Amino acid sequence: MASYQAPLRDMRFILGEVFQAPEEWKCMPATQELGMDLAEAILEESARVVQAELFPLNQSGDAEGCHFDKGEVSTPKGFKSAFETLAQGGWWGLGGNPEYDGQGMPKMLTVAFEEMLYAANASFALYPALNTGAALLLDQHAPDIIKRLYLPRMYAGQWLGTMCLTEPHCGTDLGLIKTHAAPDGDDTYRITGSKIWITGGEHDMAENIVHLVLAKLPDAPEGSRGISLFLVPKFTVNDDGSLGERNALSCGGLEHKMGIKGSATCVMNFDGAQGVLIGKPHQGLTTMFTMMNYERLSIGIQGLGLGEVAYQSAMDFARERLQSRAPGGAVAPEKPADPILVHPDVRRMALNVRAWNEGGRAFAVFVASQLDRSKHHPEAEARAIADDLVVLLTPVAKAFLTARGFDATVEAQQIYGGSGYCVEWGAEQYVRDARIAMIYEGTNGIQAMDLVGRKLFRNRGAYLSRFARAMRADLEEDVPAEIDTFHQGCLQELARLERISARLLERAKGRPEELGAAAVDYLDLLGYVAYAWMWWKMARAAYQGLVAQGPAGDAFYHAKLAVGRHFMARMLPRTVALERQIMAGAEPLMQLSEADFQPQG
Amino acid sequence: MASYQAPLRDMRFILGEVFQAPEEWKCMPATQELGMDLAEAILEESARVVQAELFPLNQSGDAEGCHFDKGEVSTPKGFKSAFETLAQGGWWGLGGNPEYDGQGMPKMLTVAFEEMLYAANASFALYPALNTGAALLLDQHAPDIIKRLYLPRMYAGQWLGTMCLTEPHCGTDLGLIKTHAAPDGDDTYRITGSKIWITGGEHDMAENIVHLVLAKLPDAPEGSRGISLFLVPKFTVNDDGSLGERNALSCGGLEHKMGIKGSATCVMNFDGAQGVLIGKPHQGLTTMFTMMNYERLSIGIQGLGLGEVAYQSAMDFARERLQSRAPGGAVAPEKPADPILVHPDVRRMALNVRAWNEGGRAFAVFVASQLDRSKHHPEAEARAIADDLVVLLTPVAKAFLTARGFDATVEAQQIYGGSGYCVEWGAEQYVRDARIAMIYEGTNGIQAMDLVGRKLFRNRGAYLSRFARAMRADLEEDVPAEIDTFHQGCLQELARLERISARLLERAKGRPEELGAAAVDYLDLLGYVAYAWMWWKMARAAYQGLVAQGPAGDAFYHAKLAVGRHFMARMLPRTVALERQIMAGAEPLMQLSEADFQPQG
Repeated sequence: MASYQAPLRDMRFILGEVFQAPEEWKCMPATQELGMDLAEAILEESARVVQAELFPLNQSGDAEGCHFDKGEVSTPKGFKSAFETLAQGGWWGLGGNPEYDGQGMPKMLTVAFEEMLYAANASFALYPALNTGAALLLDQHAPDIIKRLYLPRMYAGQWLGTMCLTEPHCGTDLGLIKTHAAPDGDDTYRITGSKIWITGGEHDMAENIVHLVLAKLPDAPEGSRGISLFLVPKFTVNDDGSLGERNALSCGGLEHKMGIKGSATCVMNFDGAQGVLIGKPHQGLTTMFTMMNYERLSIGIQGLGLGEVAYQSAMDFARERLQSRAPGGAVAPEKPADPILVHPDVRRMALNVRAWNEGGRAFAVFVASQLDRSKHHPEAEARAIADDLVVLLTPVAKAFLTARGFDATVEAQQIYGGSGYCVEWGAEQYVRDARIAMIYEGTNGIQAMDLVGRKLFRNRGAYLSRFARAMRADLEEDVPAEIDTFHQGCLQELARLERISARLLERAKGRPEELGAAAVDYLDLLGYVAYAWMWWKMARAAYQGLVAQGPAGDAFYHAKLAVGRHFMARMLPRTVALERQIMAGAEPLMQLSEADFQPQG
Repeated sequence: MASYQAPLRDMRFILGEVFQAPEEWKCMPATQELGMDLAEAILEESARVVQAELFPLNQSGDAEGCHFDKGEVSTPKGFKSAFETLAQGGWWGLGGNPEYDGQGMPKMLTVAFEEMLYAANASFALYPALNTGAALLLDQHAPDIIKRLYLPRMYAGQWLGTMCLTEPHCGTDLGLIKTHAAPDGDDTYRITGSKIWITGGEHDMAENIVHLVLAKLPDAPEGSRGISLFLVPKFTVNDDGSLGERNALSCGGLEHKMGIKGSATCVMNFDGAQGVLIGKPHQGLTTMFTMMNYERLSIGIQGLGLGEVAYQSAMDFARERLQSRAPGGAVAPEKPADPILVHPDVRRMALNVRAWNEGGRAFAVFVASQLDRSKHHPEAEARAIADDLVVLLTPVAKAFLTARGFDATVEAQQIYGGSGYCVEWGAEQYVRDARIAMIYEGTNGIQAMDLVGRKLFRNRGAYLSRFARAMRADLEEDVPAEIDTFHQGCLQELARLERISARLLERAKGRPEELGAAAVDYLDLLGYVAYAWMWWKMARAAYQGLVAQGPAGDAFYHAKLAVGRHFMARMLPRTVALERQIMAGAEPLMQLSEADFQPQG
């Protein structure tokens, strides 16, 4: 009973009106052919295929899950065929390098496609999401001979990539991995070890599976600086691209999970499997970060997509469900009761969900635009600024989008009342599917540590200054009274962020526990400030849209401004609490001994 | 791999040291025999039986779920036998009326038992929770002849009660029910209609099932003032208490739910089933509120129990899991990494969960103490005050305990990283099981409307004044510097609550949508203020405990103070945001038309 249609109107608005995407694209050689017409056609066609092929498999995929039988994994009914349909449409290479048969579309556009994938079927979306990240890594770090063999087939969805990092005793702390690689002459290595939680480690959707595996060379230094990266295909690849022998690796089983049940989460055993080194020895973690950073934004978009589909389904329900009367008297007196959307508290929940979604969508496109610039902008200074913003905002995109995405699914489920808890309505699946996004690909706590430790503290706030300068520059203009709230709110919140950042940097000198104590709240603060900025941008564009159209104007713009006002008035105030929480410092956290945390019967 | 031991130390502390329960009990005839020794013996024995019998069935019950076959429902393996074991121990009549073979224990004690039930096995706990509420209703509203037949058997767990309210087209808005009751001579009625979401509507754990059913008499006025309440047993009951014929009612199926899978959530069809009227005609909703108010506090305790077991399991994990090093350098240099509890952010999560749990436990016992007083206190004025507090705080107990309980399970799951998402560890089940508590028994939004509408606005803040007076009276003393933070925080937050309440009352005059717009945030605000008060009480008692013991003192007291300081410093500041959110008013919520909420492709 759930429904989904890609939010094309909002995507067009954000791309075209908020970020002037065609202007962006025009100034970069790689994308200068792309105009808004083509972009819109791509979005419309991707919406069509995703709605028709993937969304109908979402609930059934959850109910059925993946199957494991003697090392073989089959995906839920329909997954393989839908995957092939999209492969034939060229969708799995949408952002791929054109030199190797990719479509070369900018990230600003592919994030919209990814949102649709996750919204329509989050379990399904993970297979191409891992593949795209693996292809990106190979494109940046593999020699041309490997790129020519692998990339066209990965873009075609013929072969699919994975990311093999975690082992039973280590997830966050990859320095502890035990998987090792023995040189085997011939520039190849024999990889031995066991990896867990490998998304798409084994399945029936592709001819070959391309594992990117972290392992240690015999002479590896201790810890995270002794990790190397290997390409380990399920079937070895002959020089002509044809498949050779089955490699010495196998799937040992599937995890039983809370959600994303259509995604095969595999135990992968490497028993002297043949692999080749990608990048330099002992620098595998750095190399892997090309893929991990891609996946972090992608997982952020999982939160966004699930928030969007949860919103849409809840609104379907709210339109039909009649309970009680509006506070000011019956709105639909001819019916036994009013639709529940008349109730202020139902509207509050709906607007919360929507403000998170629309703010998150703009934020994802903003980060994507910086990724495009950092890669393609003709000016070095522009590339450098964009790169700094990407570095700063990647953990925020991963953690804030997933945390607010989870909140959105929970709030949307609440709108249903009891029906939200019953499987048939679909709302509870979105909650279960969204929950993982806060956990995998580096927990949100780890993202926050990355933000305050590596991105804020280590360079004494230099990245943050870039962010603040960019935001402030965007606020230097005369503001019409109608949207002054947004402008004022942004200035005030930016000042708060800068003030708190300075104090945190000061306080953390010589006291590293202060960073960990502040991390999650600080990330949330930066997230809310970034969303406020996005809402300023959207409010400005909506206002301009209304001015251009004359007094009545498009209901879309009016609604956009109303949702934005809700964000500013009822959601942004959370920063006030976050400020106090951050300023409380580490001391209250560190008083208890480990024994004090243990339950006392 | 999850574990649970009832938090007896904290329960003893809260009952004995924070609330001086024996003093309370002594002044009320109904409980004056009860001393702390007996209370502790009851808690210890209940902990033993709950840990031994119910907790081991929690994960298996979730995995297996309930079975439906041609109208018959069987509960998961082991449920029936465990239920009988506890029945033989007399546990199902712990708080029951002694005149009918109940044990007559005060609510202050039974809430602790209920917490253990929900913590050990939330699905299981619902069967006795419904039964206890149904027995309470019959005890207060049924004629003696029915009480004599039903109550001893319900207390013995031989027969089990249910609550049949919801129909497919109405949950919140019970005025819309269609189930009707036709007089059948002989003081009996024939009940016809279909009810959904009936917890324990059919199962294999008892000889008889006692349905309390809302239905309309032929001459019923429209809406919620035309509802009557009927007692409709699965098997009719002969005058000697033996079972007669099978009544004309049947289970039409089970819901497939996100969680509480061991709890049979039934569609119940009444096809001219024989029933008797309980209470007065057309006043069934008022009568039913005896049971509903009981269940509301009980469901609040579901949130608390799940928060506690989630905490304990997460701490088991955190003790064993080694990842990375403490920010200040290795704490366990002999190990490959430190236990994750060295990390400030893990501690932050653990302390959040614990501060919610311990604050919630104290709050549940506080509300229970007022329930006991309102029933048993010898002085009319004391009964009246207590009753007002119960009326005010019941929606807060239901909604705030369940919302924070859900937050607690989510935060505890986060501590696990990826393991928290895998079924085997148990953490994800707590999240799924806790989620329903925010929804059923009146959604938390409905609780909040009840609070601001009926409990605050309708009597112009009279109940709230009682609360404020009681809280302020408890703060009128000289405070040692060590716990001054708690004292100051309470005074400040109480002033905030009073200020906001006054403004909200003013603003809502003639603008009823203002109440709905503020409701959930206002309830949260009151919840945080009430928890702050509880933390003041606990801090004071812990401080006194330390003074009595001399300088070193019990680690329990030190930990209690540290958790409390965490609450005051890092959780209570949320009230600052809540104040702004409430003050934003209804206007931003009401701008959008219904059409504006619909997705635009």
